[in-house]
Amino acid sequence: MWSSLTEGLLKGDIKSLARCITLVENDVAGADQFMQSLPLSSIPVLGITGPPGAGKSTLTDALIEQIIKAGKKIAVLCVDPSSPFNLGAVLGDRIRMSRWYNHPDVFIRSLATRGALGGLHPYILEVTDICKTAGFDYILIETVGVGQSEVEITGLADATIVVLIPESGDEVQTMKAGLMEIADLFVLNKADRPDADLFARHLRLMLAPAFKAGKREVPIFKTVATENKGIQELWVALQSFLASEHFNEQKSWLLAEKVYRLIQQKRMKDVNKEFLLQAIKTQMSKTFNLYRFAADYTSEQNQK
Amino acid sequence: MWSSLTEGLLKGDIKSLARCITLVENDVAGADQFMQSLPLSSIPVLGITGPPGAGKSTLTDALIEQIIKAGKKIAVLCVDPSSPFNLGAVLGDRIRMSRWYNHPDVFIRSLATRGALGGLHPYILEVTDICKTAGFDYILIETVGVGQSEVEITGLADATIVVLIPESGDEVQTMKAGLMEIADLFVLNKADRPDADLFARHLRLMLAPAFKAGKREVPIFKTVATENKGIQELWVALQSFLASEHFNEQKSWLLAEKVYRLIQQKRMKDVNKEFLLQAIKTQMSKTFNLYRFAADYTSEQNQK
Repeated sequence: MWSSLTEGLLKGDIKSLARCITLVENDVAGADQFMQSLPLSSIPVLGITGPPGAGKSTLTDALIEQIIKAGKKIAVLCVDPSSPFNLGAVLGDRIRMSRWYNHPDVFIRSLATRGALGGLHPYILEVTDICKTAGFDYILIETVGVGQSEVEITGLADATIVVLIPESGDEVQTMKAGLMEIADLFVLNKADRPDADLFARHLRLMLAPAFKAGKREVPIFKTVATENKGIQELWVALQSFLASEHFNEQKSWLLAEKVYRLIQQKRMKDVNKEFLLQAIKTQMSKTFNLYRFAADYTSEQNQK
Repeated sequence: MWSSLTEGLLKGDIKSLARCITLVENDVAGADQFMQSLPLSSIPVLGITGPPGAGKSTLTDALIEQIIKAGKKIAVLCVDPSSPFNLGAVLGDRIRMSRWYNHPDVFIRSLATRGALGGLHPYILEVTDICKTAGFDYILIETVGVGQSEVEITGLADATIVVLIPESGDEVQTMKAGLMEIADLFVLNKADRPDADLFARHLRLMLAPAFKAGKREVPIFKTVATENKGIQELWVALQSFLASEHFNEQKSWLLAEKVYRLIQQKRMKDVNKEFLLQAIKTQMSKTFNLYRFAADYTSEQNQK
């Protein structure tokens, strides 16, 4: 099964791609060996993140259009937050993007986070790498977040675009340092609103100390994604960023970050929360200490 | 050192408490044994979360006042997001809370997330449990987030308060299912704004399907924290929640969640990102495969 799928995948067959993703997501036997057999690819991964309502989907839609116009192929992964309890995804409004669903050069997949403890999606790394081998020119990952998830996308994307709107003042204030370090490019969307210029000036002022400290200046692009305004300029800038030195320097750091996640995934694979819950229920008493319990569990497992 | 500190801690000595926290945060020798020696405590942990600008600090300040008025003692842990690169914290505006800094019955500590991969703070569990043994009546954890971090606070707090403001429409839309499952109580702050009633009705409508499905009805409290309006009602409700059946049912689930995190922490302790980075740099070539690298690393470590 795996060898014919791999063959199809490397030829860019969409059915093989979709099937590989599903098999890896479900951790079917042979998935590990399959991942280990894939060739290293340097296809660029674009990350788009920002607070809810900033227009990330509309911007993604506009970027797809640029890529298709240039005669290139793109895979889009939409990561949606899900509830940690019912494991149901809160799939956002993807209506605007729907015109691409049947386009032969566009592959779109929605991934629910499945309540992964502190993760974008348990197999987002694998899914991205599978897509990379299927003959696309770009991979784009879109994710909602004003918290941890946008930090995580920097460990995954070669270029991270942080989308803000003139109303995002509060988020910017809170995530100040974080945003500065995360963004390779800022997009100020809905820039036709009256307070857009003021916000852009404000953002530049806030970023200024970091530039003075010798960091790369992070450009701010004003767009009105619904009207396709500013998109081409953004696209040109993205391409020149991907060709820059800065991008190359990030490469090994990115790989280290990914390997760290893979190791974490491997090491936690055998820990079953339901089992822990039952074990705790039977041991609960006045003298229960969870640090001792965790230590005992870990040393028991190590002896196996 | 540890035995005299433990003695001081159990007596409620603030200096011993602060010192224990610092030692555990820095993983000083003996910290594991110290944590394993602490008695189980059922002091309730309150979690306050919500989008930036919702007024969480002001609400925390108002709740501290209620607790002090009732003659009780409280420890407050403020978790601030930090940049994943420079490890500097983005400490929010704590001005309002500063009037409590020298109060003998209030202990306040700011914790930066230190760029922990998908974590509130690498030792938040430990810090909370240390506080629990120092004679406080309540522990309160305040955290910013519209993303993963508010999911994680439910794994830590006995009662989670989600603070929203009338402008939070977008966040609510995106986190719909998540918010419903996370919140034990909703607070609609800045409820003197004209659109507050509309927002509250909207929120209730959205929550309605879950209540019909047999879940506990999550109450919505309107407050104007800056004017202390609605705070007493909230405080009474919080106390009755902590005395309820629902709270008891959550206990073992919470412990399982905490043990899971501790195991993860233990298992990843020996993985050094700087080492990974160097190893990757020397092995980088056309045939490099990060899945194979992670598998090799894991099996090598297991043989040690």
